[in-house]
Amino acid sequence: MSGAIDLTERQSFAFWYQENLRFSDIDMLGHVNNVAYAALIESGRIAYAREVLGMNRWPGVILVMARIEIDYRAELHYPAVVQIGSRLMRIGRTSLVLGNSVFRGDLCAATSVTTLVIIDSSTRRPVAIEAAARAKLEGHLLGKEQNAVF
Amino acid sequence: MSGAIDLTERQSFAFWYQENLRFSDIDMLGHVNNVAYAALIESGRIAYAREVLGMNRWPGVILVMARIEIDYRAELHYPAVVQIGSRLMRIGRTSLVLGNSVFRGDLCAATSVTTLVIIDSSTRRPVAIEAAARAKLEGHLLGKEQNAVF
Amino acid sequence: MSGAIDLTERQSFAFWYQENLRFSDIDMLGHVNNVAYAALIESGRIAYAREVLGMNRWPGVILVMARIEIDYRAELHYPAVVQIGSRLMRIGRTSLVLGNSVFRGDLCAATSVTTLVIIDSSTRRPVAIEAAARAKLEGHLLGKEQNAVF
Amino acid sequence: MSGAIDLTERQSFAFWYQENLRFSDIDMLGHVNNVAYAALIESGRIAYAREVLGMNRWPGVILVMARIEIDYRAELHYPAVVQIGSRLMRIGRTSLVLGNSVFRGDLCAATSVTTLVIIDSSTRRPVAIEAAARAKLEGHLLGKEQNAVF
Repeated sequence: MSGAIDLTERQSFAFWYQENLRFSDIDMLGHVNNVAYAALIESGRIAYAREVLGMNRWPGVILVMARIEIDYRAELHYPAVVQIGSRLMRIGRTSLVLGNSVFRGDLCAATSVTTLVIIDSSTRRPVAIEAAARAKLEGHLLGKEQNAVF
Repeated sequence: MSGAIDLTERQSFAFWYQENLRFSDIDMLGHVNNVAYAALIESGRIAYAREVLGMNRWPGVILVMARIEIDYRAELHYPAVVQIGSRLMRIGRTSLVLGNSVFRGDLCAATSVTTLVIIDSSTRRPVAIEAAARAKLEGHLLGKEQNAVF
Repeated sequence: MSGAIDLTERQSFAFWYQENLRFSDIDMLGHVNNVAYAALIESGRIAYAREVLGMNRWPGVILVMARIEIDYRAELHYPAVVQIGSRLMRIGRTSLVLGNSVFRGDLCAATSVTTLVIIDSSTRRPVAIEAAARAKLEGHLLGKEQNAVF
Repeated sequence: MSGAIDLTERQSFAFWYQENLRFSDIDMLGHVNNVAYAALIESGRIAYAREVLGMNRWPGVILVMARIEIDYRAELHYPAVVQIGSRLMRIGRTSLVLGNSVFRGDLCAATSVTTLVIIDSSTRRPVAIEAAARAKLEGHLLGKEQNAVF
């Protein structure tokens, strides 16, 4: 049950991607601009999709973003290193729901939930996830794909 | 009732802000990257907050983003001019909910809903919207602040 | 003689591209970040390369950036509309040198000079500009390709 | 003599800053967009200005960019980790010239030279570098401020 996963907690994640804040991420209010959060979350999400889900090796399909929700929970200031935690939350018929959160140390700066649709790269139509792929993906719902310790 | 507002329809908006897509908005899939949508939506939203809501003239408070939801509805390709429609959807005790959609002509490329919290710029605590300000804001719930015709 | 072209003067340009500053272009010093100037200059340059030079229709070649020089001449603040003037300055054996300047009204905020190399899209090697193409390009050295008046 | 410093060589640098490429740095040609190089170079330059030159602790002055030159020397593809080397190259009366290069392993992807002017934060006028500060800065011309080994 995805409702039981608390995306504000570091222990909800095993897969991490680290990013430096860039000076150009900061806006005139002196904190990381909301647009830069989207770029940080995307960095973590794509690393997870490649390294854990292996999506770049699924033949003939691409992942297209259908929806993102971001909750901004704390300001981030420059300079800082952040870690983006990623995990699979739900498997739909033709889509995946991922959770991604941005942390600076133990501070949760943002949580996000993204819906990605699997589409055929030539017809551009959604593709149903086959049983074998689904079985493999289900193993990732536990969020135990530890890649590194920060 | 915000549920009755269809953010995919141009006629739901009277306030418009126009943006060129930039080459650097496009990603390796050849379409506007999801991060660039956040920048486009922000441009429209801030124009609306300044020009319609006059938020930059409210003394002692700033608007801080608490949440954004973006639904990606169509791909955008380069070059193109887009229009971002903005309107006020709900007035909370200390927050405002805005709707912003990105159109290329009649094509709705994305809809978004943003929650902004009004905070005291020195204490950084949420500030309740006073009766006079609320009355003025309620006039904007109709979405009739026409600024230009594209 | 390119030395005679003053890139700080509006009258040095006939081809213009207009851009809105975006909130996310502004940095914590409250002015347009130097990185955003590069994006603005790129927008103007690519519009010129497509619309005037027709580079996207040259078969089998792509333009690759080899060098950029940007001189920052005035701060830009938000919100503002800027115009980017573009012109061809020199034609090399396998390269083109373009001048691009960013103006807000009569204020010249930045000038830039970019060297683009024409490369074969399959071999990735520089391609010499043939006589016919060169003759056509030479007509653009005068900077008279007026596209619009702002 | 700055002419003697080869910015394409890793051994010309002792101060390093590491960055991940982000998916949003990549453009439709499938390589890191030239605008993203400016952001990467800025990240390295600001880290150097803070950590080595201590510019954020100089009272009453700020560093303003007057000029940048970037030579693009190799394409960068996603995903990759890059290192930005930074060093002081020249000390002017009111300005500093820095060299910054972007490497992926031993591959030099870009070199750049930036001129920064020291201005009074209230009058916004250039400030001459005093003898004591100049003596301290001269020690950095050797490029020996090793901060980390990558």
